[in-house]
Amino acid sequence: MTGTTGTVGELGEVAVIAAITARLGTTGAVLLGPGDDAAVIAAPDARVVATIDLLVEGRHFKRDWSGAADVGVRAAAANLADIAAMGAVPTALLVGLSVPAELPAQWVLELADGLGEEAARAGAAVAGGDLVRGEVVTIAVTALGTLEGREPVTRAGARPGDLVAVAGRLGWAAGGLAVLSRGFRSPRALVEAHRRPIPPYDEGPRAAVLGATAMVDVSDGLVSDLGHLARASGVSVRLDSEAFHVPTEFRDTARALAADPLQWLLAGGEDHALAATFPPDVDLPMAWSVIGRVEAGEGVLVDGAEWAGPGGWRSF
Amino acid sequence: MTGTTGTVGELGEVAVIAAITARLGTTGAVLLGPGDDAAVIAAPDARVVATIDLLVEGRHFKRDWSGAADVGVRAAAANLADIAAMGAVPTALLVGLSVPAELPAQWVLELADGLGEEAARAGAAVAGGDLVRGEVVTIAVTALGTLEGREPVTRAGARPGDLVAVAGRLGWAAGGLAVLSRGFRSPRALVEAHRRPIPPYDEGPRAAVLGATAMVDVSDGLVSDLGHLARASGVSVRLDSEAFHVPTEFRDTARALAADPLQWLLAGGEDHALAATFPPDVDLPMAWSVIGRVEAGEGVLVDGAEWAGPGGWRSF
Repeated sequence: MTGTTGTVGELGEVAVIAAITARLGTTGAVLLGPGDDAAVIAAPDARVVATIDLLVEGRHFKRDWSGAADVGVRAAAANLADIAAMGAVPTALLVGLSVPAELPAQWVLELADGLGEEAARAGAAVAGGDLVRGEVVTIAVTALGTLEGREPVTRAGARPGDLVAVAGRLGWAAGGLAVLSRGFRSPRALVEAHRRPIPPYDEGPRAAVLGATAMVDVSDGLVSDLGHLARASGVSVRLDSEAFHVPTEFRDTARALAADPLQWLLAGGEDHALAATFPPDVDLPMAWSVIGRVEAGEGVLVDGAEWAGPGGWRSF
Repeated sequence: MTGTTGTVGELGEVAVIAAITARLGTTGAVLLGPGDDAAVIAAPDARVVATIDLLVEGRHFKRDWSGAADVGVRAAAANLADIAAMGAVPTALLVGLSVPAELPAQWVLELADGLGEEAARAGAAVAGGDLVRGEVVTIAVTALGTLEGREPVTRAGARPGDLVAVAGRLGWAAGGLAVLSRGFRSPRALVEAHRRPIPPYDEGPRAAVLGATAMVDVSDGLVSDLGHLARASGVSVRLDSEAFHVPTEFRDTARALAADPLQWLLAGGEDHALAATFPPDVDLPMAWSVIGRVEAGEGVLVDGAEWAGPGGWRSF
């Protein structure tokens, strides 16, 4: 990676954007990339799936705990997972970035590397952006995607009798954050899970093809996000804590930090797992684990009871 | 308008988003609106035009000088004009908002009103968003649009011999900002132009139909933005200062503030006028004023000379 010396203020907007653009890859879906008033992206089935998220320094990431590329990966992953949770395939990212003039330009370039890397992992590319000055590093990412002719899988279609299943990790990012918060740097697997979530992008469209009736991206925490799904669908979600696979290292780390591993699993967000409901006769591939069932009623119950732990991420 | 008491922190993310959503209108192009992991928007010709911009409090707006609805209008206008500058018709906005917990929720609702109002003026609607906590009010807007089967009008197609023309106001927002900066509140027309630009959205697609060879949104300043166009096209843009219509009140106000009205016209951004190049035999409608000509060479000349004034908005 080529190094750049100087701050964003010293180099200026035009030079930094040119350096970012030179590092970004592209895909066939990006019909017109960065450098004009707007980008043009393919939307083959005449619809586009679109979502926006903000990450604010100090609130969603700390520059002490995550390298710039890691922050880029996380910002991209949070948005790309929202596209996958609709059953769609990501096509492009747009990135708005507010940074202090005294931020090293190299930090911005590495952030762009992370964004581009994660976009590529999902089959997408960065198609445009904006760079402005602000006192706090703030990253706005819009992700676009295509439904490939399918109907979107919303939060509103779960029916009593459906299975509840999850693909991807639960609680790993929360565990990593807990480790970092106590000043530790290991276990590496958990710390890395906080720094770089690995959303199972392909499982979103796959779930749609398998007939998923509803789906969400687990960004706030499983109970919280399934709560949104239950409310939108007008059903109750019943989870079975025995059904969760809890690796030994995960359990041991929680114990060492006097934390409840089930709390990380049920209330930890930011792994960007996908949680979906399926008709009971579905033949699920191995990436999906059944963790519960949909019943008539409302709310999310764990082993038949209200979950007494914290509900997950709160913005305010 | 219904009033809301309490801060964003007191009401919480869910309640504020619900209140915003209840106020927003929609259009036929928004196939799935706010409330799920992502929105779904029509892209009838299998392509989507997309752009993102950030507005940061203190840098791009002051809460003292602009009401929340005005800030919403400006944030929407800046992005919608980028869509129009591609020759496209806006379809939807996505809005990411970072606000302090102690901000009155009413401010956020009025901001949403302004965003929705300006989106509607352009034929679009707010289709989704994100609300997070941050110390500085930061507004990220993504605008989407459709090319209606046409090719995008980029910055790169101007050819020697083309006419240079502009639709919309130039320098009014800069004049209004100068008035406000000196502590005045009038002339109203200029102050209002700063608070609420009126981009000529319809003129973007119209210019494309008329055969515009290149187009930009004037957001940084005419000389600066035509400079981008000249560079991308590999041509020189020659402007004739006599060709600009300068209203008497505009000229008088500049004089009263010891400012050069030509500087407001040539270097003032944020009116979001559209500047385009056309083949010389074009029959331009009245909304467009011819202000110069494209020649071989490079750069932007005013009355045959380099423009000696400030070049326009700089982010850093």
